[in-house]
Amino acid sequence: MWEKQNRRIVLAARPNGEPREEDFRLEAVDLPSPAQEQVLLRTIYLSLDPYMRGRMNAGPSYAPPVEVGQVMEGGTISAVVESRSPDFVPGDVVLGYTGWQEYAVAAGSSLQKLDPARAPVSTALGVLGMPGLTAYTGLLNIGQPKPGETVVVAAASGAVGSVVGQIAKIKGCRAVGIAGGKRKCEFVLHDLGFDVCVDRHNASFPQDLKAACSKGVDVYFENVGGRVLNVVLPLMNRFGRVPVCGLIAQYNATGLSPGIDRVPALMGAILSKRLTFRGFIVTDFAAQKDDFERDMIQWLRADKVRYREDVVEGLESAVAAFQGLLKGRNFGKLLVRLAPDPTRD
Amino acid sequence: MWEKQNRRIVLAARPNGEPREEDFRLEAVDLPSPAQEQVLLRTIYLSLDPYMRGRMNAGPSYAPPVEVGQVMEGGTISAVVESRSPDFVPGDVVLGYTGWQEYAVAAGSSLQKLDPARAPVSTALGVLGMPGLTAYTGLLNIGQPKPGETVVVAAASGAVGSVVGQIAKIKGCRAVGIAGGKRKCEFVLHDLGFDVCVDRHNASFPQDLKAACSKGVDVYFENVGGRVLNVVLPLMNRFGRVPVCGLIAQYNATGLSPGIDRVPALMGAILSKRLTFRGFIVTDFAAQKDDFERDMIQWLRADKVRYREDVVEGLESAVAAFQGLLKGRNFGKLLVRLAPDPTRD
Repeated sequence: MWEKQNRRIVLAARPNGEPREEDFRLEAVDLPSPAQEQVLLRTIYLSLDPYMRGRMNAGPSYAPPVEVGQVMEGGTISAVVESRSPDFVPGDVVLGYTGWQEYAVAAGSSLQKLDPARAPVSTALGVLGMPGLTAYTGLLNIGQPKPGETVVVAAASGAVGSVVGQIAKIKGCRAVGIAGGKRKCEFVLHDLGFDVCVDRHNASFPQDLKAACSKGVDVYFENVGGRVLNVVLPLMNRFGRVPVCGLIAQYNATGLSPGIDRVPALMGAILSKRLTFRGFIVTDFAAQKDDFERDMIQWLRADKVRYREDVVEGLESAVAAFQGLLKGRNFGKLLVRLAPDPTRD
Repeated sequence: MWEKQNRRIVLAARPNGEPREEDFRLEAVDLPSPAQEQVLLRTIYLSLDPYMRGRMNAGPSYAPPVEVGQVMEGGTISAVVESRSPDFVPGDVVLGYTGWQEYAVAAGSSLQKLDPARAPVSTALGVLGMPGLTAYTGLLNIGQPKPGETVVVAAASGAVGSVVGQIAKIKGCRAVGIAGGKRKCEFVLHDLGFDVCVDRHNASFPQDLKAACSKGVDVYFENVGGRVLNVVLPLMNRFGRVPVCGLIAQYNATGLSPGIDRVPALMGAILSKRLTFRGFIVTDFAAQKDDFERDMIQWLRADKVRYREDVVEGLESAVAAFQGLLKGRNFGKLLVRLAPDPTRD
């Protein structure tokens, strides 16, 4: 086993617009050795998430960028191979942030041990992890859904959107999803139990969304940006809330958008309808993690929340899978499986 | 006296862009007579405020529009001429909402009796009235200023902006004003006691504002819209708050703004800096009126809040004065005096 090398994907160049194959490089390097208090990990699942596009850019955002030549960052589920930490033994399955690579060394203090009896370990990257916590905290703290209100969320079959709509239902709201394509819409409607799901690929999307929101929109959970906001804005009710969680539609933008400046219309709507727009990052609400896990485990066990994973195989699939994620090609929480899941396979 | 007629200004046509003289009509009609529970009022001061531009448009906003042929709406200070209400006697000075006219009949229940010993009665239309309450509630509820933070407000010599900056100072913040022209800036700095005031007429305005906000901007009180927001946005600190109170710069817009769509940049800033934008109307916080009056009277008496009025004479001056208001030509709270102020003159 120690003859094995660590294969990893590094950022080769900062993408200009859509990330291309050449912006990444697959490398093979010697396996690292854990120092005191560290463990050697073998990655089982790598999470692919839209925020990673931002980390590929230079310049300040809410987190420092990945440097060129550095391993791409990302959340992972791993098996402990060798431990020099008193808290872990080989075979433990842990949640970490070790990036796009097959092996990694990490401080024991940076890892969270997972209990496979609680839920499939992969959910720690999805419904029970960062995307689920994002949906939960953004919707409840900023969206503040009240029974009978209408909650709209885009990317409704995705890792965050699927949870937003299901929590909206639990809170007594009407949940209106937006998704791309008939299969996703049917999943959102029938499997996730939204009240309605509107296909944004249809030419009649604006009319369809309006018809789906006959009492207007009280909460629009903004996780896509772009044209969906333009369509939702006229439907917003007075005192509506817009948690701003992600803007995947504009992550690949390379410059300013010519055309019409919609800021006056947006500000006019904020004023006349007394809307609240508030951006957030999941870490802003880290203190609510215990509440979230308690609620979500209960909802999963009661079948009130369901989830879907889209698992691709092998590190070499990661770049294409990530490119597809930015285009909405995934169907459910996107994961790359780098090694067999010992708790499942 | 009963031979006198009531002169009034009605909306003659809905303005397309900037209101023109021809969009209004000065009429003379018979004096109305008060019915039971009503009073006949003679207007002393008419308040002119930016929100009136919105009322001239058709279509729903936060209040119904003024209909063509109807008297223009507006807050007023009036003297009671004749009373059929048990609550008022001739000579009482009252705050009402009787519009652009020299006389009016109003229900006693719609009026608030003013005590000239408390403060000059005209302040009930300004620092102690709707503009003051707007500044107070928007800044404190949405802006939530904390000691040491930087608060930026445009139209800083105006009825709302002047109060925003002075309350910011009272709350221990750095107050940065934006005003048009040297005279206004000197007034904001020396008379109102802001820390700095930046002249938006200078070509170096963006650089000047940046220099004035060396620690960034924590609260931007948005009461103008347009280009100031573009300049402030890059200066906003993480978790910054933007109470959206008015958008005078775009009230005369007749259509969509060609050029660059700045919505992606705005939404990107909201997300990455976790900003809160929230629109409000003063009536949303009506329950805080008593707190406001108690605080503001105390601040006025302690000379912690100062105000400036810009008084024009005669109903026939109202249209030109309102046109000037939309262009920032007024200097302080704009009032039209229709009759001598018996408590002062």
